[in-house]
Amino acid sequence: MVTGTLRADAARNRSALIRAAKTEFADRGLDAPLDDIARRAGLGNATLYRHFPTRCALLAAVFQDALGEIVAESERHLADPDPWNGFREHLVFLCGLQAGNRALADLLVSTLTGAPELERLRGQCFHAAVQLVRRAQLSGQLRTDLRHEDLVVLLMSNAGLLERTRTAAPTAWRRHLDFVLDGLVPTHAQATPGPGAPAVRAAMGRLAERLKIR
Amino acid sequence: MVTGTLRADAARNRSALIRAAKTEFADRGLDAPLDDIARRAGLGNATLYRHFPTRCALLAAVFQDALGEIVAESERHLADPDPWNGFREHLVFLCGLQAGNRALADLLVSTLTGAPELERLRGQCFHAAVQLVRRAQLSGQLRTDLRHEDLVVLLMSNAGLLERTRTAAPTAWRRHLDFVLDGLVPTHAQATPGPGAPAVRAAMGRLAERLKIR
Repeated sequence: MVTGTLRADAARNRSALIRAAKTEFADRGLDAPLDDIARRAGLGNATLYRHFPTRCALLAAVFQDALGEIVAESERHLADPDPWNGFREHLVFLCGLQAGNRALADLLVSTLTGAPELERLRGQCFHAAVQLVRRAQLSGQLRTDLRHEDLVVLLMSNAGLLERTRTAAPTAWRRHLDFVLDGLVPTHAQATPGPGAPAVRAAMGRLAERLKIR
Repeated sequence: MVTGTLRADAARNRSALIRAAKTEFADRGLDAPLDDIARRAGLGNATLYRHFPTRCALLAAVFQDALGEIVAESERHLADPDPWNGFREHLVFLCGLQAGNRALADLLVSTLTGAPELERLRGQCFHAAVQLVRRAQLSGQLRTDLRHEDLVVLLMSNAGLLERTRTAAPTAWRRHLDFVLDGLVPTHAQATPGPGAPAVRAAMGRLAERLKIR
């Protein structure tokens, strides 16, 4: 609707900014400098701010599709006749997305109050993940003391590992994830994690704060 | 020996700088601003640079004891009559040290070519960790496809997780580690991580580069 009323060159600029932002965010993370995004698009800062008055507005434009795809993938994984396989493949899929995109790595585990569209989609992603967990627990294939908060922690640890290995050991996360997955099988449970879920909601908010994202 | 020849106030300054650096590094990480360390010690930058011409020289002065303690602890853990217990307790100990000190979290998994004393001590820590792994594998309590490089990856992922949870969910790492440990028990192995160790040596070098530590 908005796009329809934009003059042709404004629409072109908007697309160029989103394309440039996609690359910069993927390579440099959620806090990639906006100046560099404008420069890569061949446009001035003023044009960027006219189209996207906040970083969150730009993040929403860039990542809405990616989160939509996660929701679609989770439906495919929920339809897997083997609940463990569906759960496992979804986790590998999410961690793989994190490996391919530095911004997405932290976006999945951050609360961006300035981007309600993304929050809504991320809510859908989490809802699907919770269903995948329940389904695999009901079939007896996933340990029942795993809480959905634990998945957030797992994705946070994967994001941190990727930060440290992305260029020099780009497949390290995948091998590590296989060890972690083995720890989630019920018959393996022996360490018995303490009761109570980790306070991931607070940690998710803090992450956006730390990166000063508004 | 050097200290013996320092005038009393120079020795006092040196201690004040090390004390200040201990706090700043613990709170803010390996790349804590040197200016803030001098300020906390109540001294000027010139004094800091006179005592510690490089960041690595200061890191060596601050962390030599901590690495020495790790070596001592690993000997205690190697003497544990239950090899799995010794291995597990050592891993929990290392991850706990990372939780308590932001700089140590990354120091354990970085190559600091500018601090040969630390490199030598870190080499001893790794040597002990390898012995703990072998011992638990020989007793059949630890999966044999775990390589010592995998421990580095585990510590890197713990460092990254801590970065994201330290203030808001300070015990999240401990619960996550219990899941990971369960994945290291041999009977649990089913995911079969691919062959070949991750290229942690390169990743360890890259980390110091990323933080521009010399």
